[in-house]
Amino acid sequence: MKILAIGANGIIGRAVTNVLSNQHEVVAVGHSQGELTVDIEDITSIQALFEKVGQVDAIISMAGNGGMGSIAEMPSSGYATVLNNKLMGQVNIVRVGMEYLNEGGSITLTSGQASNYPIQGTAAIAIGVAGINAFVGVAALEFEQGKRINAVSPSFVKETLEQWGADSSAGIPADDVAGFYQQSVEGTETGKVYNAVLANN
Amino acid sequence: MKILAIGANGIIGRAVTNVLSNQHEVVAVGHSQGELTVDIEDITSIQALFEKVGQVDAIISMAGNGGMGSIAEMPSSGYATVLNNKLMGQVNIVRVGMEYLNEGGSITLTSGQASNYPIQGTAAIAIGVAGINAFVGVAALEFEQGKRINAVSPSFVKETLEQWGADSSAGIPADDVAGFYQQSVEGTETGKVYNAVLANN
Repeated sequence: MKILAIGANGIIGRAVTNVLSNQHEVVAVGHSQGELTVDIEDITSIQALFEKVGQVDAIISMAGNGGMGSIAEMPSSGYATVLNNKLMGQVNIVRVGMEYLNEGGSITLTSGQASNYPIQGTAAIAIGVAGINAFVGVAALEFEQGKRINAVSPSFVKETLEQWGADSSAGIPADDVAGFYQQSVEGTETGKVYNAVLANN
Repeated sequence: MKILAIGANGIIGRAVTNVLSNQHEVVAVGHSQGELTVDIEDITSIQALFEKVGQVDAIISMAGNGGMGSIAEMPSSGYATVLNNKLMGQVNIVRVGMEYLNEGGSITLTSGQASNYPIQGTAAIAIGVAGINAFVGVAALEFEQGKRINAVSPSFVKETLEQWGADSSAGIPADDVAGFYQQSVEGTETGKVYNAVLANN
């Protein structure tokens, strides 16, 4: 398969690119580094990317920014970042990318566990990830020609927690998270949210 | 209790205002009709409303616009309406209103069933309602002084379906929906999403 991987330079992105490159042709796209870049907030930037890359068999989005903050303190710009980037950025990838997806191809987006396990300071992020999960459910009903769409919803990733200097014992290793993207791409499911959490959690 | 009811002129709004007025002082607010109006997309408009009304024991939001459309055809403006109005409009009511809420008071927002039971053409709405539900879960953890927050998630309302000339047999009567808002206001729950659907569905 020819797989377009957007957000390929992050911790999850590198793990996913690694595992899928064994069997597939992975076209890696970053926000600012590398040969191919895209600004997912800008629909014309996404269109330019697909014009360069052409038709693909799978699209994986591991992109999307968002910050933490309490409702009492989070400024409007904090919500705007999540809504414009993490949420609508990924929706934009679908709106443009569905036209460049081969018959039977798949799109996999990235949400997160903030809406399943609410914690303080994650209101904006929780909105964004819940929105992605809901969007995938509707999109799966609208897709035709056997095209599929799923989301991977990772909890805190072990390597990210280590980078932050935090306790990483409850974090899921990036390679395990990558396995869920692989299932989404190589399997037959559609409209599914893969909860990428530690098995014993 | 002194209850601020935002979006009081709609089908649900009138039913809720009706039932709560028996026991409480309900301050009704519309978008453009009536003595008190507010534009929930504009945080200064919400601030001006609360400056007029003062402290309250409960805030109910039954406001929020959004339209249907397939992902292939929905323009960016369709998503923006849901995100700015239905979603961030209600979040804005919380951001401002939490400061005007008496100790032990409650906020009740309105989501909807589009994210629980996805149907074609509801991608934008599903994003909005899922976002509201997720937001309420986090806000409940951050609220202090016994302040509570819930959402009511109604399915299609019988009277709305009748207005559309559609089959209304699966619709929930507005008075039944109003009962869930009453539970949220008069009860002790927080962080809860009340699924306002027909009992036999």
